[in-house]
Amino acid sequence: MVKPGDRVRIKTKDGEHVGILMPRPEKVPGNSVIIKLKTGYNKGIARKNIVSMYVLEPYKKKSASVRNIPYKKGLPNIAILSTGGTISSKVDYETGGTFPAVSVGEFIQMVPELEQYGNYEVKQMSQVWSEDIASDDWIKLAKEVYSQIKKGKRGIIITQGTDTMHYNAAALSFMVQNLPVPVIFVAAQRSIDRGSSDAFPNLLTAAITAAKWDGAETVICMHGSTDDNANILIRGTKARKMHTERRDAFKPINDMPLARVDYNGNIVKVSNYKLRSDSKPVLNTKIDKKVALIWTYPGIDPKIFDYYIKQKYHGIVIAGTGFGNVPRNVVPILKKFYRAGIPVVMTSQCIFGRVNARVYERGRKQLFEGKVIYGEDMTPETAFVKLMFVLGQTKNMEKVKEMMQKSLVGEISSRTTMSYI
Amino acid sequence: MVKPGDRVRIKTKDGEHVGILMPRPEKVPGNSVIIKLKTGYNKGIARKNIVSMYVLEPYKKKSASVRNIPYKKGLPNIAILSTGGTISSKVDYETGGTFPAVSVGEFIQMVPELEQYGNYEVKQMSQVWSEDIASDDWIKLAKEVYSQIKKGKRGIIITQGTDTMHYNAAALSFMVQNLPVPVIFVAAQRSIDRGSSDAFPNLLTAAITAAKWDGAETVICMHGSTDDNANILIRGTKARKMHTERRDAFKPINDMPLARVDYNGNIVKVSNYKLRSDSKPVLNTKIDKKVALIWTYPGIDPKIFDYYIKQKYHGIVIAGTGFGNVPRNVVPILKKFYRAGIPVVMTSQCIFGRVNARVYERGRKQLFEGKVIYGEDMTPETAFVKLMFVLGQTKNMEKVKEMMQKSLVGEISSRTTMSYI
Repeated sequence: MVKPGDRVRIKTKDGEHVGILMPRPEKVPGNSVIIKLKTGYNKGIARKNIVSMYVLEPYKKKSASVRNIPYKKGLPNIAILSTGGTISSKVDYETGGTFPAVSVGEFIQMVPELEQYGNYEVKQMSQVWSEDIASDDWIKLAKEVYSQIKKGKRGIIITQGTDTMHYNAAALSFMVQNLPVPVIFVAAQRSIDRGSSDAFPNLLTAAITAAKWDGAETVICMHGSTDDNANILIRGTKARKMHTERRDAFKPINDMPLARVDYNGNIVKVSNYKLRSDSKPVLNTKIDKKVALIWTYPGIDPKIFDYYIKQKYHGIVIAGTGFGNVPRNVVPILKKFYRAGIPVVMTSQCIFGRVNARVYERGRKQLFEGKVIYGEDMTPETAFVKLMFVLGQTKNMEKVKEMMQKSLVGEISSRTTMSYI
Repeated sequence: MVKPGDRVRIKTKDGEHVGILMPRPEKVPGNSVIIKLKTGYNKGIARKNIVSMYVLEPYKKKSASVRNIPYKKGLPNIAILSTGGTISSKVDYETGGTFPAVSVGEFIQMVPELEQYGNYEVKQMSQVWSEDIASDDWIKLAKEVYSQIKKGKRGIIITQGTDTMHYNAAALSFMVQNLPVPVIFVAAQRSIDRGSSDAFPNLLTAAITAAKWDGAETVICMHGSTDDNANILIRGTKARKMHTERRDAFKPINDMPLARVDYNGNIVKVSNYKLRSDSKPVLNTKIDKKVALIWTYPGIDPKIFDYYIKQKYHGIVIAGTGFGNVPRNVVPILKKFYRAGIPVVMTSQCIFGRVNARVYERGRKQLFEGKVIYGEDMTPETAFVKLMFVLGQTKNMEKVKEMMQKSLVGEISSRTTMSYI
């Protein structure tokens, strides 16, 4: 029996086709089969036209093989920390889904151009979907980044899934501060098996950034537009995944990109950033997990908030509407939080722009009676990660407020003017 | 004593200034005062330069006065339903905040150009902040819209605050279907007292739309860009407030604007929409309020979801990550919801793009084991409003799924290609 993944020869009335039999996508009617040609393109063939189909080579799961790469003097040492995701995903021909499969060594085999930019130490941190990455992974990653910097790496690349990359990049930004070299988060929106995959250009520009960028910040390195010619570097605390499938899904929020990196190795500065230096990195993995992020909506039952008081949460980030407003009947809850010693940080579900307590009466009430901490122009996600970090440092309400409203690593812009949709 | 709101004459070393004394904004140091000149511009004057300050006219709260507007034959009849918000806000010179104050009749006095486009019936629905508008207000509004259409109005304008306008426009889209004329939501991002206020152009283009647009959909009419020369019409179910303060805060999501309306009364069609006709409007205000909208985040405690089961919610919309994924330990909760007869609709916190269960294993699990209903390319907010509406029609899980995944009023696009940031 012919199975997906088998290499097959299909004879039709019009000719012969050789390729890998693909699992049938849901949208393709049952009266045709699809094979992946040697060129990488998929081809559908109507069943009624098929004269015969032979298996040339049955499907066999390939185990990862790592080629030995010679050390090149004069090239910088770069670390690649792999945590799974589409950038290291392959199609499972049996279920038709994709799964993390490629071993870290294969990165360099996949993108030969990487070799001209550096010597790589690749390290498999975990093999986890980005939607499962949480604070324990952040701590593990932060420690490894710190250790790799101490070992003299010129840049650290972290590969992972895209889903929560902005949360993770924000976490690393806070956990390893005072960077002497860049930390680069990179991922792919489309599977390596697809012709339109962004895995190759993304890995390449991440390596170029690690080797050659003069900046020393934690950044996300992804497509700047649908044009397939350059990536942009976005500050890790000012990024957000803004599209489910486009390659240019990550956008800077209330910020400009820091730089543009093309596939030939050219880097153009776009805005100001912290430069590489001999500064001593500071590792600080103390965080408080008992923090929730709550988005309000019309008619939200204030009792929902009571739950977090009862469960003794240590901090709450609210994504309110507009300048950071909550419905009238939620305002008393804010006071309850304050009396319970639980800091509440206000952000906006508009995503772009800055919260402001002083424009409307509601904001003033929230500020003066609810003692709400206004999160300036931080995204709800960055404010959430930051509150976890800040509560790891102090539980003092005044100090929490002070730290939340001060820019620690560039997460708060002094003016909101830039890079709106 | 001189108070904010007083009309004053200030003598300085350099000359004399007459204007309204403004409340001191938080950012202005105490060593200067600000007056609003007759031109509408504000001027700061250093206290050290002030020789004297006299009150010419003390501040007096003005009561609204409605001018009698003659009926003009040949002009269409238009309804303006007012629900408060910045578009009808004035600065309170005593507290420095803004509050809803302008009576509906003043709209026409404020924008004299309105008169050339129609005869208006203005109706004060409520005076409420948009963050407080909830389902009861939707029902009241829907009934009034329906009644105004029945009375032969050529267009219905609804003025309100911006914060939740996209939720409200979505609700009205579902509650009054099969429209023969347009229903136009309009608001202002900046107070009428400010030189940069968008209240005037927004009201004007809303009136032009009501009088002249050939479309018959529920739309949001707001600035299309920072250029102050035209507004765009955005389908009510495909809009979202994407900036806290910019005048072009509202963007079409996974959709194109329907039309562009300039201040001279020209309307340019941008994409396809339902045309005006003799169709009979259908009023349907049955909704189910027991629906929650939950945005996930890394490390979210699955117990949070248990709360909604215990509280016997009737439906849940989740804004997951990427294609609509939730952390691994939340997947079993989805099955719990299903077994409890509570439909779960999945959307994406990316906002742009379409959810897709079939790309990753996680999605397949959510789809096949969790029986999650995928919300296509609806925003989390529109899916939330729609689920309330759908659950008002049926509690049958299969029928809920069918209605949620079918476009009732244009809330689901057949392909997601358009209008990304």
